[in-house]
Formats: sequence, structure tokens, C-alpha cells
Amino acid sequence: MKKVLAFDIGGTKIAYAIIDEKGNFTNEVIKVTTPKTSSGIYELLKTVIKGSEDEIDGVAIATAGPVNNENNKIIGRVGNLPEGYDETDFLSLTEKPILLENDANAAAWAEFKIGAAKGTKDAVILTLGTGVGSGIIVNGKLLKGKSGSAGEMHVRFSFGHERQCGCGLWDCLETYVSGTALSTDAKIYLAPDATSYDVIRGLKEGNPKARAAFDHWQECLENTLVMMANIFDPEVIVLSGSMAQFVEYEKLNKQANEDILTQPFILKQAHFENNAGMLGAALLLIERL
Amino acid sequence: MKKVLAFDIGGTKIAYAIIDEKGNFTNEVIKVTTPKTSSGIYELLKTVIKGSEDEIDGVAIATAGPVNNENNKIIGRVGNLPEGYDETDFLSLTEKPILLENDANAAAWAEFKIGAAKGTKDAVILTLGTGVGSGIIVNGKLLKGKSGSAGEMHVRFSFGHERQCGCGLWDCLETYVSGTALSTDAKIYLAPDATSYDVIRGLKEGNPKARAAFDHWQECLENTLVMMANIFDPEVIVLSGSMAQFVEYEKLNKQANEDILTQPFILKQAHFENNAGMLGAALLLIERL
Repeated sequence: MKKVLAFDIGGTKIAYAIIDEKGNFTNEVIKVTTPKTSSGIYELLKTVIKGSEDEIDGVAIATAGPVNNENNKIIGRVGNLPEGYDETDFLSLTEKPILLENDANAAAWAEFKIGAAKGTKDAVILTLGTGVGSGIIVNGKLLKGKSGSAGEMHVRFSFGHERQCGCGLWDCLETYVSGTALSTDAKIYLAPDATSYDVIRGLKEGNPKARAAFDHWQECLENTLVMMANIFDPEVIVLSGSMAQFVEYEKLNKQANEDILTQPFILKQAHFENNAGMLGAALLLIERL
Repeated sequence: MKKVLAFDIGGTKIAYAIIDEKGNFTNEVIKVTTPKTSSGIYELLKTVIKGSEDEIDGVAIATAGPVNNENNKIIGRVGNLPEGYDETDFLSLTEKPILLENDANAAAWAEFKIGAAKGTKDAVILTLGTGVGSGIIVNGKLLKGKSGSAGEMHVRFSFGHERQCGCGLWDCLETYVSGTALSTDAKIYLAPDATSYDVIRGLKEGNPKARAAFDHWQECLENTLVMMANIFDPEVIVLSGSMAQFVEYEKLNKQANEDILTQPFILKQAHFENNAGMLGAALLLIERL
């Protein structure tokens, strides 16, 4: 049975584990704080790889930032990782086969191969966290674009100049559909210091203001589903990330399917949680071994 | 040299011509009024095919409506074609090879193979006419989705409940970016009975109200380009359709590339005009012969 060492490199933590060709984790996932320099990250990866090089068939890395699969390089500066990280020479880490993939794409691949989108050929996986990410499967393959950076969910949703987005523009989808967006709605509908947690709690308690905040957020999510279903005509749209647990799936599935021009899709919650990135990168590499 | 008989079936006209494997039209394009019944359309196609069956290697049809390539069938009702058209048995028209493709997809294929997107692998072709259509090339192939209906450009662009879209929803992209949209802007910025022609004329005459109308329209187009570039990371976005000639390409190319998170793309005007659908369908069929 083939086994690979898989990493998930994020701005806060680096997680790693050994994963076999069936997608099983053969040890517990280890998490360490992300080093403050790009050379620190390189050394950490090198040390971990050395420690298990004898028992693995390759190294799979899910990372923040767009990845060019032709040369296993990261394209351009990655916001929450140290300067110079995009110039890391990942190929020199080991003589074993190595694969690098964007974390949202890798997580989408895990859902596609053995998770909520298993058995489909066309699927959209949206991650609703601090921001909104996506991994898109087109005819059984990851949508990458010319440089590996496809799937950025930045679209202006309003002319109101109401919410500034991290990308520099105003009123992007992300400012209406992410966890951060629900916090914004909390402040508008509940109180100036309210948070997304107050909305979720208020929803359970039947608070009408919390319901209004959540409904606005979920309507924007519906807008996003309609957009992606109209553009991609997927079999399934999968929601992952911290906000996915709060979505009213049945209601949203019905409403979005009424509003699209393409053929019906199925809305699902993701099967995997935090470790989907590592898992997907591992599966991508094992297919090529 | 291989040759095919190619049709373009629209709600108003049916056009046809014989096209060779280099994309040359071997005769003048003939246009006839679309028959009022689906059996009338079938008989027309049958008659035209009979007349040239000896000299062709196959029949290529670009049609309004989504097409399932696995069975050469149209999926669901097509708005501006007669009832029952979607049940037409195209395969029974001839014993020669036959291929059916959605007209926007076929036109995109023509631009991709021998037009403005030639030499790329990832391209978005937007048609700005009465509505807004798209054909999308992902890694050298047409994006079709699970049922052939991918590429519907319906996304809500505003919360304002200002412009109702033909799809039934409010404030879709199409109501801000099409030719119809510029007519709406004409009425808002110029006069209640003004049209898109008044905007274009006013623009040439230096009328500031016409400039304001056009700028709003073009800003919405920029929003569309940013969306498509962020989602698909294409090498090129091509604009076709009746409105494509009015776009300020250099200005729009610069602005949109400043606003995207993916890598730079190039904005281009389509190479082909009205006959791109026929041509693309012909090229798609000839590749398979």
C-alpha cells in the first residue's frame, strides 16, 4: 500500500500526517506553529521529511496561495505567509516524488474523490470561513486556469459601496457570504458589538433580529450558489469551512434550484473538515505514483 | 479537403453554408426566416441537407439552447424557438456524421481555434447582444457542465431590485451589461425615450450625460470581466456580439487587470462576427471526422 507524507501549510499552523492510498491517516495529525520566516518553514519541512523518508513514497503539500502544477511553484506573494515563501524551492526538499497544490483545490479534490462529491464529474466546493474560497472540478479535473490561480471568489455583489473587501474592491461576494460577513450582519441587525456567534445563538432562541441577519447572509449565499450553478452546471455544490454547519441545506437547495437556468444540482455539506487539504494533496500525489 | 454543411439556428433566422476544414466558407451564407413550427424547421434542414449531401462529409448545427453532446439532443425548452423544437431528432436528418452544439459555445470554439483566442488553452468568450452569453474554454476544451448548459451568465449584481431579468430574478448581470442594459442606462441618464443608439451618438459628440450612461454600462462590464478572470484565470477574454464594437478596450483591459486577484489576462474583440456559430460547429465536427 502506497503512503505519502502530507502537509497543510497555513499562515497560523502547519499540519502533517502520513496518509495511505485509501485516504487513511496512519498516524495522528501533528500541528505546529508556522515559523516566522520562509527559511524556517523550509527547514521545518526538511526535518519532518527526513524523519519519515524511509517509510513514504512521496511528499504532498497543500498550501495557501496559487500553485503552478507544471513546476510545483507558488505564484506570487501569499498574504498570510512570510516574505519569500513564494520562492521556496519545494522540489529540493526530497528526492522522492513531490506534489504541491493550493489548499482549497486540494480540499476540493478530497471531497471529489472520497467525500461529499464522490461519484460526480462536475462539482463546486465552496469554503466559507474568514473569507470564501473555492475548488472547482470540471469534467473530473481541477479547474486551474492559465497559472493555477482560478477559483478566486471575488465578484462585486452590490453598487452600494458598503463593505470593503480584503482584495481592495468594494462589496465583493466575500464581504456578504463569509463568516466575517455574518459578523457584519450581526452589527447591522443586532447591535454594534454583536458577532456571528450572537446571530447563531439568537437564531436558536427565536430572536427575530438574529433571524433577519441570518436570512440576509443566507440570501447572499443563495446568490452565490445560483451564480456557480449557472456558470458551471455542476452535479453538486459542497459547502465546507466553519460556516457550513449553520446553513439550512434543504431550504437553500430548494430556493437555489428554483432560481437557476441550468439543470438541478444538489447542495451538500462537506464530508471532511480541517484535514481535507492534506488528504486531497495526498490523493493527488498517489494517483501519479 | 473535408467539408461540412453548417447551420446556425436562431429564433429569427436560420443561416447555412458549406465550410471546409480550414474554416473557409465555400459558398455564400444563405439566410432564411425560421419556420414557425418545429416540424417546419426539421423539414427545412432535411431539404437543405438533401441538396448538398453528395458533396459534404457531415452536418454541423449551432443552435440556441443547451446541448447534450452525448446524444446530440437539446435540453429543455428554448425560449425563442417553437414548441417541440427541443424534441427534434437531429440524428435522423442524415446518415452522415452530425454534430449539434450550443451557438455561444460554437462561436467560442471558432474564436478559440482560429480567431481572437487562437493559441491559448484557457479563454472566456462573452457575447454582448440583446442578452449576455458565454462560451468558456478550460484547458483546451469547452466547459459544458453535467448537462451541457454551463456558461449561463446570470448573477445578481445589486440588491436594489431595480432591473428585472428575463430569467425571472432581479438585477442579473444581463440587465447591466447587455445591449438592452445600455438602453436602460440611456433612459436613466439621457431621457425617458432614449436608446442605446443615443448613448453611442452622444458619446461621439462629447455629451456628458451620454458619457455617464456609457461609463456606468462599461463599469458593469468591468465587473463582469473581473468576475470571470477571478474564477477562470484565463489567458484572454474575448468580447463578441453587437455591443463589442463600442467597448474601450485599452482602458477596460487596464482597469480590470488592476482589480483581479489572478494573473493578468488580455481583453480582445472577437475576430468573427455573425457566422462564428456555424464556423465553430463546423470545426468541432471536422475534428471528429
